[in-house]
Amino acid sequence: MRKPNRRSRNKSTLPPAAPPIRPGMIGGRYQPLSQAEMERIHELVLRLLADLGLSQITPSLEARAVAAGCEVDDTGRLRFPRAMVEDVIGRTRRKFTLHGIDPAHDIEIGGRRVHTGTGGAAPTIMDFHSGKYRESTVADLYDIARLVDRMDNIHWYHRSVVARDTETVLDLDINTTYACLSGTSKSIAVSYTDSASVRAVIPMLDAVAGGEGRFRQRPFCTAVCCHVVPPMRFATESCDALEAAVEAGMPILLVAAGQAGATAPAALAGAVAQACAEVLAGLILCNLIDPQCRAIFATWPFVSDLRTGAMSGGSGEQALLSAACAQMAGFYDLPNSVPAGMTDSKLPDMQAGGEKGYTISLAAHAGASMIHESAGMHGSLMGTGFESYVLDNDLLGAILRTVKGVEVNEDTANFDVIRDVVMGEGHYLGHPQTFARMKTDYLYPQIACRRSISDWEDAGARDARDVARDTVRTILADHYPGHIPEEVDRRLRDNFNIVLPRARMGASNGIW
Amino acid sequence: MRKPNRRSRNKSTLPPAAPPIRPGMIGGRYQPLSQAEMERIHELVLRLLADLGLSQITPSLEARAVAAGCEVDDTGRLRFPRAMVEDVIGRTRRKFTLHGIDPAHDIEIGGRRVHTGTGGAAPTIMDFHSGKYRESTVADLYDIARLVDRMDNIHWYHRSVVARDTETVLDLDINTTYACLSGTSKSIAVSYTDSASVRAVIPMLDAVAGGEGRFRQRPFCTAVCCHVVPPMRFATESCDALEAAVEAGMPILLVAAGQAGATAPAALAGAVAQACAEVLAGLILCNLIDPQCRAIFATWPFVSDLRTGAMSGGSGEQALLSAACAQMAGFYDLPNSVPAGMTDSKLPDMQAGGEKGYTISLAAHAGASMIHESAGMHGSLMGTGFESYVLDNDLLGAILRTVKGVEVNEDTANFDVIRDVVMGEGHYLGHPQTFARMKTDYLYPQIACRRSISDWEDAGARDARDVARDTVRTILADHYPGHIPEEVDRRLRDNFNIVLPRARMGASNGIW
Repeated sequence: MRKPNRRSRNKSTLPPAAPPIRPGMIGGRYQPLSQAEMERIHELVLRLLADLGLSQITPSLEARAVAAGCEVDDTGRLRFPRAMVEDVIGRTRRKFTLHGIDPAHDIEIGGRRVHTGTGGAAPTIMDFHSGKYRESTVADLYDIARLVDRMDNIHWYHRSVVARDTETVLDLDINTTYACLSGTSKSIAVSYTDSASVRAVIPMLDAVAGGEGRFRQRPFCTAVCCHVVPPMRFATESCDALEAAVEAGMPILLVAAGQAGATAPAALAGAVAQACAEVLAGLILCNLIDPQCRAIFATWPFVSDLRTGAMSGGSGEQALLSAACAQMAGFYDLPNSVPAGMTDSKLPDMQAGGEKGYTISLAAHAGASMIHESAGMHGSLMGTGFESYVLDNDLLGAILRTVKGVEVNEDTANFDVIRDVVMGEGHYLGHPQTFARMKTDYLYPQIACRRSISDWEDAGARDARDVARDTVRTILADHYPGHIPEEVDRRLRDNFNIVLPRARMGASNGIW
Repeated sequence: MRKPNRRSRNKSTLPPAAPPIRPGMIGGRYQPLSQAEMERIHELVLRLLADLGLSQITPSLEARAVAAGCEVDDTGRLRFPRAMVEDVIGRTRRKFTLHGIDPAHDIEIGGRRVHTGTGGAAPTIMDFHSGKYRESTVADLYDIARLVDRMDNIHWYHRSVVARDTETVLDLDINTTYACLSGTSKSIAVSYTDSASVRAVIPMLDAVAGGEGRFRQRPFCTAVCCHVVPPMRFATESCDALEAAVEAGMPILLVAAGQAGATAPAALAGAVAQACAEVLAGLILCNLIDPQCRAIFATWPFVSDLRTGAMSGGSGEQALLSAACAQMAGFYDLPNSVPAGMTDSKLPDMQAGGEKGYTISLAAHAGASMIHESAGMHGSLMGTGFESYVLDNDLLGAILRTVKGVEVNEDTANFDVIRDVVMGEGHYLGHPQTFARMKTDYLYPQIACRRSISDWEDAGARDARDVARDTVRTILADHYPGHIPEEVDRRLRDNFNIVLPRARMGASNGIW
């Protein structure tokens, strides 16, 4: 038997302590809108759905909707009667498990529980070695997945870049799904714009789940569905994908991504209302297909810089849009998602940190169930960079610590503790409460530097990005998750056009 | 007569637009504590003041306090009966004008109006030219003042560094006051630890105000007073300074800066309660000296990293402490201050941005009247750097935009706007609402980059810090405020030991 070393002895004598943060802490203490303001927005939402409706519905969904009480007006727009909208909101699923591939990564979505993870569809990545932006690839998707797999505060992996090295939409979707699945055992999400893609990947998901029909029992891959082209128009192909995904039992992220001042009103309240109406339209369709569907209310209105029309994901206005949408989702009590962390900066600098800091913290405190884009993104979603996942994970930890809040009870607001210290030693360093709270109440960052100025100078005066690069190198060189058995992987390679070489998926590839 | 050029013609035809932000927008939509939790903390505060009290009161203040109903227990601690504490809270001044030297910079403090400005007492500065930390000087104080003078979202200049190039406390205080006054016409704040310093600077303040007794009419210099040495002990000399400052009509920042886990409880709720008790003790004393005093409830509990004992100003725990203190001040309805923006990073990098982003936004949304340390600080208040004032001003703008919130009314939540666009052009770019909201609802940053990735690369792929350095150079080379007439300045130089050479205070000094 191995003799316990000093370290493990110490470890075993420490009392078990609840960690300072965990996925799914309760948000909602920031309320950008008053109750009356939410009701006013809700009134506009109902009116938009009933009196304006959405154009371009697919024949199949139109048939379902009309059978359930919707009307098609003489311009072909699908209109949703108020009572029906309120009915569906009332009976829709209020919480569900978003499964990880590994059940250890399951998260419970709904009820103002806050989670943070990736999002996005960046076409470019800042190359880790050259520092220059280039087209993103399947290998990048896989490497980001491996990073995410090791980041405690990134609770899922929604593919954040587009693999530009695939030829067809089907190949893109198959290889994206494969790279995500292979790189992390957390819950994954892929954007499917085509029902054929959804049907194509189900056998892959079943294979990873352990056999035909098994994926449906623990669906660990969410279909991201931009079911609308704002303003107030259905995206026809995506609606077909939506139908296929819901039928396959996939969780579905119903995204309405209007841009205020371009495809949504410049007035923030109007942009929130339009997004809510567009997502509710999708939610109703999902519920008509399967009342037990796992649908996520993803109001993602973006901000335009009105001088140029360019998106500004890092603006204060964006922080407000996302927080207000999270609060509206709370008003409806629906499992939801908003975007935050979408800095306009092209690299992880002071601007990126600041913009991520306020956008994510306001979305989190507004009680968003899922904060997408909260890690890794650059340039208003147009780029990404490996270091940013590591840096943002640290930031997310601190923000989630603030969501946990201040515990006020007999132990924490205690007269005797203060009196004993004041009348005794005069400081709290040696007090049992200090020792007890050290591990339960205080979160220690992994990247953020807390050294003194002179210690920091002695250690090379490095900035946070430089420190994070070390972590990237270590993880990417070492961490090749083995949750998909080799035999399953071989089967996938036999049945699908997988472009990521098997040799790329192990420590001997010599890249890192 | 000069012919109007194209630029001024354009200007005059634009409709006057309310700017998207202004000082003093209303916060309070983030409530980290419930009503019951605030009441529990308040109960502990009352008990601490009544049953434990504070030691080391000065004889003069003891006499005033005992005459007003306080008791001195047999260990010499000054105790404050509950009814007296509640009385003073009830009758204390709820709002007042914090005057700028120039009335254009007056701000109204109280009632959840949020303002942001500098703070701190850093002993070092990251030298702008060498990038290395060195001892800070009177010239640095003056140069920072000049930067602050040009930053719209830094609403006052509380001296942020200690001038290490002065010999005595009196010289330090005189030269600090002089450098602040000379560099900006905003409201200034200086820490006086000694009543002699307070008495010495009043003639200087009067001279700048226009004559003897004039400062008292528009007091534009706040005395920062750390009147306690936590836990629950008065700082004797600072109490003398407090008395002198209140008698001179100075606004007074009553700071209790305990460190959780060292000089305050590790449990956050306890740290908040102790800080509230300590500041209330000071507030009562100020009110006994002058019931019309301008006192600011400055609960500044800091966080220790309990592994090392070092301060961690950028932690999530710090964000919670400051936000909870702001909320308690709102509970008491007192003009108040909390610290936020105190990054642990030693330079303006991603860590600094993130930490400033969440700490400042949560303090602001919790409704703090004054957020001190919100610009310029590095290394948990141990350092500063010129670039950071410029960078943080940009960040503060975006955060203050979020405090302004979402306007929900007939114009912003408007059915007709959406219907007209949907049934018409299909996008909002040309809609009158978009044009109207462009200037009133959207804030455009000065440093933050919103270019596309390729434009940014073409422009040199600079980070935010690098861009901010250009602004620093421009301002410091050009901006020498002339609000103190040369003749007044000459008189000050005749009567005080001013170490900043007059030649340093003009564009011809050749430094920038």
